[in-house]
Amino acid sequence: MNDELLRAWARLSRVAEPPAPGLAALVAEVGAVRAVDRVRRGEVSERVAAETSARRGVERADADLAAASVAGVRIIGPEHPDWPHEPLAALAACGVAELAPPVALWVRGPGRLAARCERAVGVVGSRAATGYGLHVAAELGAGLADRGHTVVSGAAIGIDGAAHRGALGVEGPTVAVLACGADRAYPLAHQALLARITATGLVVSEYPPGSVPARHRFLVRNRLIAGLSAGTVVVEAGLRSGATRTASDAATLGRPVLAVPGPVTSAMSAGSHRLVREGAVLVTRTEEVLEELGPIGAHLATDPPAVRRATDALDTVGRLVHDALPARGAREIGWLAKEAGVPVGAVRVALVDLERRGLVDHHAGRWQLRPEEVRAGGGGTRGWGA
Amino acid sequence: MNDELLRAWARLSRVAEPPAPGLAALVAEVGAVRAVDRVRRGEVSERVAAETSARRGVERADADLAAASVAGVRIIGPEHPDWPHEPLAALAACGVAELAPPVALWVRGPGRLAARCERAVGVVGSRAATGYGLHVAAELGAGLADRGHTVVSGAAIGIDGAAHRGALGVEGPTVAVLACGADRAYPLAHQALLARITATGLVVSEYPPGSVPARHRFLVRNRLIAGLSAGTVVVEAGLRSGATRTASDAATLGRPVLAVPGPVTSAMSAGSHRLVREGAVLVTRTEEVLEELGPIGAHLATDPPAVRRATDALDTVGRLVHDALPARGAREIGWLAKEAGVPVGAVRVALVDLERRGLVDHHAGRWQLRPEEVRAGGGGTRGWGA
Repeated sequence: MNDELLRAWARLSRVAEPPAPGLAALVAEVGAVRAVDRVRRGEVSERVAAETSARRGVERADADLAAASVAGVRIIGPEHPDWPHEPLAALAACGVAELAPPVALWVRGPGRLAARCERAVGVVGSRAATGYGLHVAAELGAGLADRGHTVVSGAAIGIDGAAHRGALGVEGPTVAVLACGADRAYPLAHQALLARITATGLVVSEYPPGSVPARHRFLVRNRLIAGLSAGTVVVEAGLRSGATRTASDAATLGRPVLAVPGPVTSAMSAGSHRLVREGAVLVTRTEEVLEELGPIGAHLATDPPAVRRATDALDTVGRLVHDALPARGAREIGWLAKEAGVPVGAVRVALVDLERRGLVDHHAGRWQLRPEEVRAGGGGTRGWGA
Repeated sequence: MNDELLRAWARLSRVAEPPAPGLAALVAEVGAVRAVDRVRRGEVSERVAAETSARRGVERADADLAAASVAGVRIIGPEHPDWPHEPLAALAACGVAELAPPVALWVRGPGRLAARCERAVGVVGSRAATGYGLHVAAELGAGLADRGHTVVSGAAIGIDGAAHRGALGVEGPTVAVLACGADRAYPLAHQALLARITATGLVVSEYPPGSVPARHRFLVRNRLIAGLSAGTVVVEAGLRSGATRTASDAATLGRPVLAVPGPVTSAMSAGSHRLVREGAVLVTRTEEVLEELGPIGAHLATDPPAVRRATDALDTVGRLVHDALPARGAREIGWLAKEAGVPVGAVRVALVDLERRGLVDHHAGRWQLRPEEVRAGGGGTRGWGA
């Protein structure tokens, strides 16, 4: 990349606080270099002028690029081959100002962001997660990454961290989108986790190196998790939480919102449940996530194999006759017909079929359940039901 | 009730193993007494002949009524004022043979079944419930009953029992539908629970006194739980469970299916989760259940006064018959009885009333909506409950 472009992206990343819909539109229209030039000369719309007025005079591009370089962070913009055009297109297309696309992204770690986002799934949730939520997030992270999907999250304590760790645990791809500079370790407790992500995955931020994680930036950052992912899974979330905001961003972008249920007695699942009641898809395991995001994964969820019973294959009459047989003792066909409420002829046909299946046998015109069948819980009374 | 009718119901309840769609249709068409007579003389369709062939010769009506009387059990049929016509109409209307309506019901306990079912909610689930599921079922049972809704369930170990107990705990209404005779205590562990239900609620069964709970009867019974309820809530259910079958029956009847989520790590919630994925409404507390079943709830009281229609003052049967009349064209009483799922005698009474109100008229034994009534929007939608 030529230096002029790098400097233009760096300058754009600092000249307005994201999201900056006016500036993003200008960059999309004239490119980064000309956009920088126009902002510098004040030849911009009122909207862009407002977005850039506070920091128009700040000249930090070279210093930011130098600090980034020291920290192993690089910058990319829409003109860069690593830029994830397709995923981010929805941010501009949705027309919602708060969801405006980033003008540039600071990236740390090996690999190309565009490639990482081809099969990416957002996995988000609360910081105050329960052991249950952490377990499920880690399982989902591992399951998705194991199938080659990138796990995108926010590197926060709780669900985010568990999702990243799940992916890392199977040596799968993961992307952390930060609400501070990509050179910072925030939260501090996740310093080692961020180092691991940087080693094999990617850490991404739209904020220049050294930027602090101001509170509003967490919400602003969430649109990028939603934007870089084909769909977003909420694992555990309270009723008011950043994760439900990410889900709402995903919905606005037309991306599937998925939610993992939990006990209705847990406040940490209340947000997930509300999302499902509002239309999110309930998911319980990786296969169901991939099923929903179909085009990015050809997998279709099949139910786990259920226990098969020998009586499963019986038709209605077969089941009636089978149930009519007592646990002990043999019965005549007439008795069975009455007990089962089935005509004698049909009972006879059913008994032949049951015998063929090894479920009953007969002596001297009287039929009974085979002993193995009794032990297995068939027939008789009959502890089965609702 | 006259003895002839009681004996007819008793005989019908034993002459065919439920569900008996042919017999149910015959009873709806000609009434219980004539249906018994025709079955006895063999003047029935092939279908009814097949349903009744095995037990046609069994004469136990007097013995069954005597046994019932000793156990405090009474019998009701469609001609009885306690018969829940409106709820059960959907069973005939859905046209699914396995969901055919009962021909009679044995009832134990104070109160009228029809009244109990006016604001009834099915709460069902697995026998192998977890502590979590039992807690939620009891809370729901108590919450619904506390707001005047009858909790309908199957008295099984597990979720069913917890739901009944929840309702009893707030001295609220509850109805247990059994897969065996209403005189039996099954499961035995619920002997005391059934006694408590009998004291203030109702125990209901379509099987004659002394009938054993054969396996298939649990599934057959489930359609009555769905049929007597305005909607069915599944609290905990495995992937293969009677509770999901009840839910499927409810859906076939056009009644809302609601499911309580739980940990995705619990096999006991797998059935609930699958129901939600297939379209059931996720609910986490009583208020959400009532919200979904709105029209049966106390919310009616707070609704703005609706436009008065001439049909507002009709009783249940009147409304069923009125709704059964097509917008154009005249119909015979037999046809209307079938369409409305109401016995011919009751249709006749209702038509006289409808005529008196100026809603219908008749020529040459065929009845039709009066033209003004068609213009006013009569003869339209059906449906009950939610």
